[in-house]
Amino acid sequence: MTVTSEPTSRAIVVPPGLRGVVVSDTTTGDVRGDEGFYHYRQYSAVDLARARSFEDVWFLFFEGHLPDAAERDRFLARIAGLRRLPEELDTVLPTLATTAGGLTGLRAALSILGAARDLGPTWGASPEQRTRDAMLVCAATPTILAALYRLRLGLDPVEPRDDLHGAANWLHLLTGDEPDPRHVAAVEHYLVATVDHGFNASTFTARVVASAGSDVASAVTAAIGAFVGPLHGGAPDRALASLDEIGTVDRIDPYVRDRLRSGDRIMGFGHAVYRTEDPRARMLRDIAEGLRDQGLDGTGLVDLAVAVEKRVVEILAELKPDRELNANVEFYAGVVMALCGIPREMFTPTFAVSRVVGWSAHILEQSQGSTIIRPAARYVGPPPPQPVPAG
Amino acid sequence: MTVTSEPTSRAIVVPPGLRGVVVSDTTTGDVRGDEGFYHYRQYSAVDLARARSFEDVWFLFFEGHLPDAAERDRFLARIAGLRRLPEELDTVLPTLATTAGGLTGLRAALSILGAARDLGPTWGASPEQRTRDAMLVCAATPTILAALYRLRLGLDPVEPRDDLHGAANWLHLLTGDEPDPRHVAAVEHYLVATVDHGFNASTFTARVVASAGSDVASAVTAAIGAFVGPLHGGAPDRALASLDEIGTVDRIDPYVRDRLRSGDRIMGFGHAVYRTEDPRARMLRDIAEGLRDQGLDGTGLVDLAVAVEKRVVEILAELKPDRELNANVEFYAGVVMALCGIPREMFTPTFAVSRVVGWSAHILEQSQGSTIIRPAARYVGPPPPQPVPAG
Repeated sequence: MTVTSEPTSRAIVVPPGLRGVVVSDTTTGDVRGDEGFYHYRQYSAVDLARARSFEDVWFLFFEGHLPDAAERDRFLARIAGLRRLPEELDTVLPTLATTAGGLTGLRAALSILGAARDLGPTWGASPEQRTRDAMLVCAATPTILAALYRLRLGLDPVEPRDDLHGAANWLHLLTGDEPDPRHVAAVEHYLVATVDHGFNASTFTARVVASAGSDVASAVTAAIGAFVGPLHGGAPDRALASLDEIGTVDRIDPYVRDRLRSGDRIMGFGHAVYRTEDPRARMLRDIAEGLRDQGLDGTGLVDLAVAVEKRVVEILAELKPDRELNANVEFYAGVVMALCGIPREMFTPTFAVSRVVGWSAHILEQSQGSTIIRPAARYVGPPPPQPVPAG
Repeated sequence: MTVTSEPTSRAIVVPPGLRGVVVSDTTTGDVRGDEGFYHYRQYSAVDLARARSFEDVWFLFFEGHLPDAAERDRFLARIAGLRRLPEELDTVLPTLATTAGGLTGLRAALSILGAARDLGPTWGASPEQRTRDAMLVCAATPTILAALYRLRLGLDPVEPRDDLHGAANWLHLLTGDEPDPRHVAAVEHYLVATVDHGFNASTFTARVVASAGSDVASAVTAAIGAFVGPLHGGAPDRALASLDEIGTVDRIDPYVRDRLRSGDRIMGFGHAVYRTEDPRARMLRDIAEGLRDQGLDGTGLVDLAVAVEKRVVEILAELKPDRELNANVEFYAGVVMALCGIPREMFTPTFAVSRVVGWSAHILEQSQGSTIIRPAARYVGPPPPQPVPAG
């Protein structure tokens, strides 16, 4: 006997892609595209990025309020304890690193982690159990991604250090070195700024899966599946590749006009929701300029990026006057990560390190309900039943 | 520059769980819950199950029409060629079998398969490429699931035989034996009957992921994430476990009343869409009775199931008069699979062997569009922006 009972279906037709369709109430936050503003709970996300650590914001998403000092200490200790991988993963990661790697490898590894650590269905579980499972998935994600990266290069994974958190932990896991505090500060801003961003396709995927009562690892691996799609934002390496292609300021105009003429997109510009400048792009530009001013940009990348942004926005305004096209989060994210020494193949995984916390917050919220997300479709083929011809 | 441009969002509020909300046009088929009827393309699914093989129906979903003899031969040869696993999987399956196994192991394995076989994004790919990728995922699924099962038991995986297809291939991969034709016929009916069933949560998940332009393996692994949720149908072992618990006809009444009193569900009864008998349950009951009449039920399981179904429906009609609660597909699926020698832990994986074809058909259909599924939510927390307190 299923819980859900549905009325005789009366079709409700909505815009394609469920655009503007409210599928859920939420207290996680929101994106106000017209205002160029997004928030986590009741706080501006950009304010949080400037004032708080990644783990403080993680706590905010999981517990609903910002931690006090004692809560922070307990939370950090708890994360440190969950960061090391179970033996089952140690065995399989070297193989995963050579066969899959990156987010594909993470997906496989999280499935195994879920089995090894007995992650149970969210449906019927206590809130404490669900939170524990989500903590585990979020804490293990950087360890897994960094281990896959290093194993692929023939290096040993780096053991997590209990005293390092957020960006410092991530940079340490990638390099094995003591991270540069200037890099840590920049990447920490990035991590906080990208934890969550409304009901995008990956977040919605996580919620659909959670609505079936599945375990947190299932919902997160599903979200990763959407996240890797080329129509989903979040691949800062593509935007940086465009900067490489442009190379010098005088190449901007021909590059942009060529791309647009052949119907291609300019990576790093435009956003599905923002009609204004993407507030994340604005913040990351400030950070990139700060890194430059600290002498951390040896190649003039920041100045090139600023020039490209300015000129591309002008050209787009001229050629696509009906659209408001501005730099999006991807554009400066790649610049910041490059300046902080993150290898290009780890740009999107870095995004996943923060976004897994957002997905998990949505999974935890969705798990409080028991209504499975099960929409309808309109059959538009030939009318059934036709007789089945003999085979 | 993203493809999607959205109007200033005006919130459209719809029923919880998107119930009755048409998210897409489709030519794959439909479920008419009020009539107790479902169809694949323009054919009754039950008619297809009685008249056609699993691969004929697979072809119907992928190509839009039933195959002629020459098309069938080519299709079967193509599947046979895709059924063997790449070396990368051979290496990792033994570890997966002991760490994850079942559908969790399948999920990890499909991620690796996708990487090993260069599955690309569906967005921007040719229809031929997308179909090839989907063929590969569907063809490899039974091989992976059976290998994981056997490796877990300490047995060597069985090499697929090019002359066996559908249920015969599946039973052979599980046991290594020449399958009994009576078992093959019964399981083949089951496989055909469960390929697809509207926009349920796993199918919808697959479509959301495909809408981001992700590869087929990403979309299928995401669907598996929803599929394993306890609120998603498709776990025939749970229904069979209820039959075990009941044990004898005189135990039915107290069992059902006890369960309902403690607020529990009776597994195998009720369906989110059907207001009538589930047409799959009706067909599988016929098949179970056929197996019994052929002398293949040594324990009286079929007679017990028929008696339980009759009595449970009566009690539910009495205690829940406002609901139409009948046996669903899970109820007789477990009985049929048990009679055909499928081990209980492989019931749900058997469901996945057929459903992966349905998911893939939806992925292929969704990939023809370029509108990412990105709904909205209503923020109901305290109003932002509140000042961020000092950490």
